[in-house]
Amino acid sequence: MLLGHSTWSFENKPVIKSSSTVGGPFEAKGKIADDFDVLHEDLWLGQDSYEKAEKVLFEEALLRTTEKVNMTKDDIQFLLAGNLINQLTPVNFAARTIGVPFLGLFGACSTSMEGLALAAMIVNSHYGNNVLTGAVSHNAAAERQFRYPTEYGSQKPPTAQWTVTGAGVALLTSEGDGPYVTSATIGRVVDMGLTDPFNMGGAMAPAAVDTIEAHLRDTQKDINDYDLIVTGDLGKVGREASLELFIKHGITIDESKYQDCGLMIYEEDQEVFAGGSGTACSAVVVYGHLLNRMKKGELKSILSVATGALLSPLSYQQKESIPCIAHAVSIEYGGERS
Amino acid sequence: MLLGHSTWSFENKPVIKSSSTVGGPFEAKGKIADDFDVLHEDLWLGQDSYEKAEKVLFEEALLRTTEKVNMTKDDIQFLLAGNLINQLTPVNFAARTIGVPFLGLFGACSTSMEGLALAAMIVNSHYGNNVLTGAVSHNAAAERQFRYPTEYGSQKPPTAQWTVTGAGVALLTSEGDGPYVTSATIGRVVDMGLTDPFNMGGAMAPAAVDTIEAHLRDTQKDINDYDLIVTGDLGKVGREASLELFIKHGITIDESKYQDCGLMIYEEDQEVFAGGSGTACSAVVVYGHLLNRMKKGELKSILSVATGALLSPLSYQQKESIPCIAHAVSIEYGGERS
Repeated sequence: MLLGHSTWSFENKPVIKSSSTVGGPFEAKGKIADDFDVLHEDLWLGQDSYEKAEKVLFEEALLRTTEKVNMTKDDIQFLLAGNLINQLTPVNFAARTIGVPFLGLFGACSTSMEGLALAAMIVNSHYGNNVLTGAVSHNAAAERQFRYPTEYGSQKPPTAQWTVTGAGVALLTSEGDGPYVTSATIGRVVDMGLTDPFNMGGAMAPAAVDTIEAHLRDTQKDINDYDLIVTGDLGKVGREASLELFIKHGITIDESKYQDCGLMIYEEDQEVFAGGSGTACSAVVVYGHLLNRMKKGELKSILSVATGALLSPLSYQQKESIPCIAHAVSIEYGGERS
Repeated sequence: MLLGHSTWSFENKPVIKSSSTVGGPFEAKGKIADDFDVLHEDLWLGQDSYEKAEKVLFEEALLRTTEKVNMTKDDIQFLLAGNLINQLTPVNFAARTIGVPFLGLFGACSTSMEGLALAAMIVNSHYGNNVLTGAVSHNAAAERQFRYPTEYGSQKPPTAQWTVTGAGVALLTSEGDGPYVTSATIGRVVDMGLTDPFNMGGAMAPAAVDTIEAHLRDTQKDINDYDLIVTGDLGKVGREASLELFIKHGITIDESKYQDCGLMIYEEDQEVFAGGSGTACSAVVVYGHLLNRMKKGELKSILSVATGALLSPLSYQQKESIPCIAHAVSIEYGGERS
């Protein structure tokens, strides 16, 4: 059912029956290392390119997710996924490996929740019983494509962010036990005219606030109804900017219940500038750490708001500003499912 | 409802209430020029880059589609769209202009039918009443990104194809009159190991056949039940390869009822090598020419099978083969809608 203008309410409460996260060596030293299913010591994952390493990250997350519930690819109807690399090649090749019907998505770092929203709709509307969705990114592959190869050692300002090397995948099903998806709000493109690709958190903050406000309006919820609202990768700068926007819009938010995946994944002493980012950032934090916390009973309801900066190196060179977007998905667990 | 393994059946028959197509100067000389709503004499569309021209093509198609039925962007709930350019920037910027909740898709030249399938699901399942979907491509922007700037005048083999400059958009609604969407089959990635980016038709043919066969199996239809099965952009080489595959698989197809958008858009004397291609190829042929033929009563049922080659310049340089995909959507008109 459509709620308000842009929110999908999932009355059948599709279940996240299984999920899996895979990370790289830097993530292995991070704050939520224990929440990963697989952590790699080698950034190359034994491959001869970072893009192929990214493909393997995603293949592993897909495989683990199904294996955990004794499923094979034959049990899966659809895969919805995306990443940052041009033409989504790492995800396309992983989709070739798993061989199930595939829908490619691009929402930059909002892709994880774009996929979860659509997968939940498919399951809720009986268009699939077992649907996989996920996102992946690789630090060195993204750096080369968007900035410089990491081997160049180019410097960055403190507003820059650190692309997560990792993959997060969730399996949505129509039956079973697990945290379930209750609604999703699809964001519109918001662009406040910022042009600095080294401050994407600041650029994305208005999109996050816009989608959260739309979600609250559509669902008639209060911002403090959720145990946690977690943005994707605003980082320090973007989080501050979003808090200022909430104040400006007359919304009082309990800061302890408003966090950012980009600020949850690494330790304070890891040099990640303003925080983590990348398509995998929200995917690994939500599908690993936060679902684990929900299963432990620490959180009963979260709103995951993945944020994406929809620019390209070319659009930056052409002096365009940074169009941003955010999609929000609410996940609940612990109450009555139906 | 899910039919078989990978087909969505739309029992509420979402209506294509409006559609619009925009083309460039080369398309203006083509076989279906009369079916375009707007044709531009200037490949730049008055912009200072081809990417911005591509954005304008898409904005125009969005605007025309809504204007035709006296709607504004305020009547629209969602836009699902994609294109070939890295990070989808022309579409992202057009989504910023229209300002409605946006889902970015990437399926290379299969994007048009990926979008139509998802938009039909949204409308069919009451998650939106007025949903826009479309695709766009620009010859010179795609050439620069995937091959060389056109100004270089580099030569191509006869198996190469010509990227369409154009945009096609459809408005799906839950009520009203017009051709309606009855089902969609989501394709899986098929890769037969071909590596030549100048023969994408040949690479994509097995994916088209795989999806058509899945569609017939899931819906229990015969290949000749449709007035027309139209592939996206297989071109001459890919069409021949697909016909051979049908024969090999024991399927007898009436060749007059099996056509390719890439072979329908240009005149015989236009130098397009093996045919048209690009994200817009199937979008402009289906949303313009073929819907017009349906409205005239010439066609009652078509299966549009958009085909995508999910490679990138980088994956080619890394000596990967070309993963391909095809999504099929059936459109009917003239019979009883419900």
